[in-house]
Amino acid sequence: MRALEEKICREGQILPGNILKVGNFLNQQIDTAFLCEIGREIARLYRDAGVTRILTMESSGIAIATAAAIEMGVPFVFAKKHPAINQNGALLKAKVHSYTHGNDYFATVGAEYLPAGERVLIVDDFLANGEALNGMISLLEQAGCEIAGVAIAIEKQFQGGGDKLRARGIRIESLARIVSMSETEGVRFAD
Amino acid sequence: MRALEEKICREGQILPGNILKVGNFLNQQIDTAFLCEIGREIARLYRDAGVTRILTMESSGIAIATAAAIEMGVPFVFAKKHPAINQNGALLKAKVHSYTHGNDYFATVGAEYLPAGERVLIVDDFLANGEALNGMISLLEQAGCEIAGVAIAIEKQFQGGGDKLRARGIRIESLARIVSMSETEGVRFAD
Repeated sequence: MRALEEKICREGQILPGNILKVGNFLNQQIDTAFLCEIGREIARLYRDAGVTRILTMESSGIAIATAAAIEMGVPFVFAKKHPAINQNGALLKAKVHSYTHGNDYFATVGAEYLPAGERVLIVDDFLANGEALNGMISLLEQAGCEIAGVAIAIEKQFQGGGDKLRARGIRIESLARIVSMSETEGVRFAD
Repeated sequence: MRALEEKICREGQILPGNILKVGNFLNQQIDTAFLCEIGREIARLYRDAGVTRILTMESSGIAIATAAAIEMGVPFVFAKKHPAINQNGALLKAKVHSYTHGNDYFATVGAEYLPAGERVLIVDDFLANGEALNGMISLLEQAGCEIAGVAIAIEKQFQGGGDKLRARGIRIESLARIVSMSETEGVRFAD
């Protein structure tokens, strides 16, 4: 998605530790019109995939999932990284290692929100090592859902998570794929 | 908003400790078409209020803020409850006590995302004691923003937070206002 690549070059900021900061438009301050463009692109890519619901992870996936779900006319669900007292039923859980925070957490979602047989599209803002995505895949496997595929705004392809999952046969569509990035040379995208 | 009251009666669940669980449609599994209705109602209520951006709190406010921001054609920003390594600039901070989790946390937002002079609508899913809302008001005061008002999906009016803020002259619009609720007698709404 050319518009996203241009936006990353114009407004993104490269921080030490392979962090790409896009809080200016994607995951803290949200450019609403642009978010809707992302939603439309995800809907276009998966329009024939029989998607019946969307799964994302709190917090930064929620806005993108909302936009995609509105375009696709399906409900969405988000997995929680932090336990909440209003989770009273059976929970699905998956352990996730966070490289960015240097800790492990359990992603949880109420089992009632992922009924068996649903055909689920996973949506998230970033894909790097694939840890969060593996957690969501595990939740869907536990639930007995089909995985329609994955839609990611920004894939840091050089970190390898996406290609490992493609090798398992999972369809992954990333709207911008970064093959290298550095504070001196900026961001380079896949062709 | 009658449709929200009916949905709460039909799909909400009252848990011990004055918890109203609406994870089925509002804050874990999201009924997308209904979310858009909520967004339209918030936009209608504040259409003449000169709102230039929306502020919410992660995580459960984000979907509602997204829907409202799309309808209103303004950007939105969410405050974080958990520190993130991609927050590298000046931060605004406000201490918030969480009754539901029994702890204190700092709500933070990059100062660059709340420029002075913006006219900001605060959006959230719940208003009970008003702690999270007070935190967001403090962030806006620190930023030098005007508070256009507050839009809440569900106010538990009997917990008093909303009325304290109204007494300070802040406009608060709640789409459903609960005056009492119990496991035996269900939910009663304000007229």
